[in-house]
Amino acid sequence: MSIRSVPLSRVHIRDDFWSPRQQLMTDVTIPYMERILRDEVPGAEKSHAVENFRMAAGESSGAFYGMVFQDSDVAKWLEAAAYSLMLKPDAALEKRVDEMVALVGRCQLPDGYLNTYFTVREPENRWQNLLECHELYCAGHMLEAGVALHEAGKDELLHICCRLADHICERFEKEEGIPGHEEIEIGLLRLYQATGNDRYLRMAKTFLDRRGQEPDWFIRHTPAHPGIHYGGYDILPADTAYNQTDVPVRAQHAARGHAVRQLYLLTAMAGVAAETGDADMADACRRLFADIRQRQMYVTGAVGACATHESFTVAYDLPGDRCYGETCASVAMTFFAHAMLCGDMDGKYADLMELELYNAALSGMQLDGRRFFYVNPLRVDMRLAGKVAGYTHVLPRRPAWHACACCPPNLARLLTSLGGYLWSEDRDTVYSHLLIGNDAELQHGRIHLETGYPWKGWAKYTLEAEGEFCLAIHIPGHVRNLTVRVCGEDTEGKRDKGYLYLRRRWHSGDTVELDFPLPVRRLYARREVSDCAGKVALARGPVIYCLEAVDQEAPVGALVLPQEAEIREIQGIPGLPDDLVALEMTGESVAEQDELYSERRPEREEHKIVAVPYFAWANRETGDMTVWIRE
Amino acid sequence: MSIRSVPLSRVHIRDDFWSPRQQLMTDVTIPYMERILRDEVPGAEKSHAVENFRMAAGESSGAFYGMVFQDSDVAKWLEAAAYSLMLKPDAALEKRVDEMVALVGRCQLPDGYLNTYFTVREPENRWQNLLECHELYCAGHMLEAGVALHEAGKDELLHICCRLADHICERFEKEEGIPGHEEIEIGLLRLYQATGNDRYLRMAKTFLDRRGQEPDWFIRHTPAHPGIHYGGYDILPADTAYNQTDVPVRAQHAARGHAVRQLYLLTAMAGVAAETGDADMADACRRLFADIRQRQMYVTGAVGACATHESFTVAYDLPGDRCYGETCASVAMTFFAHAMLCGDMDGKYADLMELELYNAALSGMQLDGRRFFYVNPLRVDMRLAGKVAGYTHVLPRRPAWHACACCPPNLARLLTSLGGYLWSEDRDTVYSHLLIGNDAELQHGRIHLETGYPWKGWAKYTLEAEGEFCLAIHIPGHVRNLTVRVCGEDTEGKRDKGYLYLRRRWHSGDTVELDFPLPVRRLYARREVSDCAGKVALARGPVIYCLEAVDQEAPVGALVLPQEAEIREIQGIPGLPDDLVALEMTGESVAEQDELYSERRPEREEHKIVAVPYFAWANRETGDMTVWIRE
Repeated sequence: MSIRSVPLSRVHIRDDFWSPRQQLMTDVTIPYMERILRDEVPGAEKSHAVENFRMAAGESSGAFYGMVFQDSDVAKWLEAAAYSLMLKPDAALEKRVDEMVALVGRCQLPDGYLNTYFTVREPENRWQNLLECHELYCAGHMLEAGVALHEAGKDELLHICCRLADHICERFEKEEGIPGHEEIEIGLLRLYQATGNDRYLRMAKTFLDRRGQEPDWFIRHTPAHPGIHYGGYDILPADTAYNQTDVPVRAQHAARGHAVRQLYLLTAMAGVAAETGDADMADACRRLFADIRQRQMYVTGAVGACATHESFTVAYDLPGDRCYGETCASVAMTFFAHAMLCGDMDGKYADLMELELYNAALSGMQLDGRRFFYVNPLRVDMRLAGKVAGYTHVLPRRPAWHACACCPPNLARLLTSLGGYLWSEDRDTVYSHLLIGNDAELQHGRIHLETGYPWKGWAKYTLEAEGEFCLAIHIPGHVRNLTVRVCGEDTEGKRDKGYLYLRRRWHSGDTVELDFPLPVRRLYARREVSDCAGKVALARGPVIYCLEAVDQEAPVGALVLPQEAEIREIQGIPGLPDDLVALEMTGESVAEQDELYSERRPEREEHKIVAVPYFAWANRETGDMTVWIRE
Repeated sequence: MSIRSVPLSRVHIRDDFWSPRQQLMTDVTIPYMERILRDEVPGAEKSHAVENFRMAAGESSGAFYGMVFQDSDVAKWLEAAAYSLMLKPDAALEKRVDEMVALVGRCQLPDGYLNTYFTVREPENRWQNLLECHELYCAGHMLEAGVALHEAGKDELLHICCRLADHICERFEKEEGIPGHEEIEIGLLRLYQATGNDRYLRMAKTFLDRRGQEPDWFIRHTPAHPGIHYGGYDILPADTAYNQTDVPVRAQHAARGHAVRQLYLLTAMAGVAAETGDADMADACRRLFADIRQRQMYVTGAVGACATHESFTVAYDLPGDRCYGETCASVAMTFFAHAMLCGDMDGKYADLMELELYNAALSGMQLDGRRFFYVNPLRVDMRLAGKVAGYTHVLPRRPAWHACACCPPNLARLLTSLGGYLWSEDRDTVYSHLLIGNDAELQHGRIHLETGYPWKGWAKYTLEAEGEFCLAIHIPGHVRNLTVRVCGEDTEGKRDKGYLYLRRRWHSGDTVELDFPLPVRRLYARREVSDCAGKVALARGPVIYCLEAVDQEAPVGALVLPQEAEIREIQGIPGLPDDLVALEMTGESVAEQDELYSERRPEREEHKIVAVPYFAWANRETGDMTVWIRE
């Protein structure tokens, strides 16, 4: 038995940090999204997504509205709603999900085809423009929704999805073709894992195998539609790096192009490699993971630095104030890291999930779950953000909704399915990846995990199990001076690649207790990152910190943190949750001067500096913010 | 008698620094430009400018080619050629100028209209699209050329220009209309100064008076031409700040929009204010000068930070690595500062001219006069420059020629007419603005100035004059510890707003000697300039320095200059002129580290650092460069 993730259905999160956030999703965000999709929220961006399905089912008339990939909003909502039902039974939600699935079913054409844009607007052109038209992308998301509902015990959408997937296999087994925006591969892989039908796995692998073999494929196969920009953007087929078609996937060496595309591709590659044992594909995934982690990632975990084409750029080009760092890309990076764990049990993947979850992904959401960032900058200057060319994508406050509404549902499906990221197992070993409180039903029995994480450095595993097996616990990469007690007795265990391996004959009631300090850490970037030269970032446990104007006595841009400054932990910052650990230190601020340029080195004044978790920024008074602080 | 600039015809530059550069212009650049305009340079961007004139004159057939303002290249060349003839008689050049002027004359229509684009391509549409079509802009440059040739003793183009100006007055005295790109106002002002015909001054003032009175003027008066972008760019009439039509010119408070437009407007405003005594207009000029100098200027003098629309942005938004800093904008800033001196004898204007001339303007030109920068960044990272979105305008090497060839001729006309920027006089006083060696014929006699500037801190004025008058010498703002000797005797003189006033009865052979140290200065930006936080720039005399990769032992981005480091002057850098003063210091470089982010503060290694004058960068091996150095 190879290593498998323990599915969401067998893991129940009970965690002071994450449970309230899951509850926000089930009680606030997912219902709100549904109302958005149904155009029932006054003042919000018009969605029209449900109405598009009604029109495709012949139950309404009018014009298609929205992105060519508007269907994916419904699919992602269905997926998140499925997880929501698993977290918290809700008959009313279940009824609305059933209605939505039935509506989706009525849009499916007899041959299995399912896409409202083409059904309503250009039935003659389906599967003609794979570069821009996102039919395979929308299908991939629908497949993921079908599998999620299947896991929640509801199979109607799964049947629709199998017909859709069969239709896609019919078409693309015979005819060449690759998706312009990767995602179908993930959907097919998950459908294979849910159904055991290996036709779907083969199709996923075929899409991967074909990609980049003919770098000019889209150039030769994209019809000219003067004046029509399907995606609301303008991507030339000749930009083959944009959608990762410039080289075969196994020959990729660096992440480039559209970040979400790149990361969905990698997630699929990692999954297919784990299923098929494709060593070259697994190697490519490891290379790309290393490239991103070591050369193209912000300290918050944000990836896809460049607003132009929402893309990776080149190594070490990581400007904080123009960071794009799409929330979806951090969600996708979490998917990718999780997929890697199936083939390669290395703590660096779990560390990466942790980094995204507590920082770049979580910052996408307002603390109350009602507003979302698309872009997650590391520095905000109010004079520039949202106004000046080069900074127009940077916002100091989360918008209520987005015309391109990909990020909120992506975050919703990640957070509601978080239980599925906690554990893996094979015949002999149970792997715990994340220090998030939960009850898990595993093959060897039940394990109950309690923890004070991320604010406190302790975790306690209590087993309801009998028998010999190995419990492998991921120790976060930042932990030093770990104390391990098994049934109250200090233990060393065996450490390998970020995991603590504890093998013994376990009895019900046995406990494993971890204790570790959570000192404030000063982080420095390597010298190639010019934006971070001479600067320091603060972290404590998995949480990266930032300075917000509302907490400071001097302008954020003027603050300097001396190397020797003592940093104190504080709680009770007004407007933030009581248990949130903030940091207070005595720093300096550069004094104002009259001249733009002066021969006088600016003087410094002593000032208190307060840092708050990055994920919590932009929840109070709007103002300047920075993660990197001049040291 | 109000203060007047002493015209170029009465000033002869003899200067170790500038004379060779003027010679490059007369011997290399101006002949090269002419061959470009005639499409005689294999491999260079096609110009077609002369051919457009031939077609407009009915002497050739074919299609107009180039920018809608391609005529201005010919006008700017004629202006530069006029100055060249004043610097150095050249019968062959004079003959070619005469032929070019005759060709221009043959293109003029009977009513005085002169523009090849509309004559060849859209005769029915002349004066219809003032926003985009640059007819008034091209006319303004032709007027400047006509005045320059008049100053060189050749009046044929002046007659053509008077007919053109009369035609413009006929049209725009009666009908509303403002230029989309300012320049006609400068041309009309200079034509007034050359001819004494105050109709031209009134017309210039009228264009200024109208501007911004109706912010929607261009919105109402720009015809829709689907698919035609006259300028090769896409500016919406609604962007009223782009061309400074959002507020009346006297109500302007901050520089914004297209930098060259803003600065040509200000140059005209300053000139018209000085001619008419318009105090409100003069106040607006002073406000805008202060805004640019104190909030929107790079330490090199570069202005117009933003590549998008080649524009000013907001206060303190001065990123070095994405700096646009068009050469034309620095040339225009020199014009503006010079124009201000006529109404307000303040050394800050002369200091600004000096800053532009020795730095941001001069860096536009390769040392051999054969290649030109359009964009003048303060930091170049070879991994990004010219490649990555946001940096595509930044080049590490001057191109051979440009499709939009505005900068080389603009620099050529500035450098060849430099003599006209050195002196002003009124009835009682002679003002020396710049420490550039020259012989000047002034109303009170001749003055001969020798100087070791910019490398050595001495200057010597020798008078051939008899009588009482005041000699006012601008002392550069960076000078401390000035020694003044008049006829060998130490003198204090009177100092006011950057000028040293020496009043006495002068006799032929009298001398004024200035001596001052030129220490290396460390410059700091005010705290609002985030890109310069914790960094220092080096200057010596008027020259700003930079670090180029070719001179360093460690990567430019890794270098750190300790606060206490001693900085030594050196000469003889291979590949640079022998007399050029470079700087050598013992600095540090941040050590390489393996991890992108690390808890270990990076170590430092001791390294020699060499700084060279910014104007001389990109003349040797291509590589990283920075003006601001981490301190």
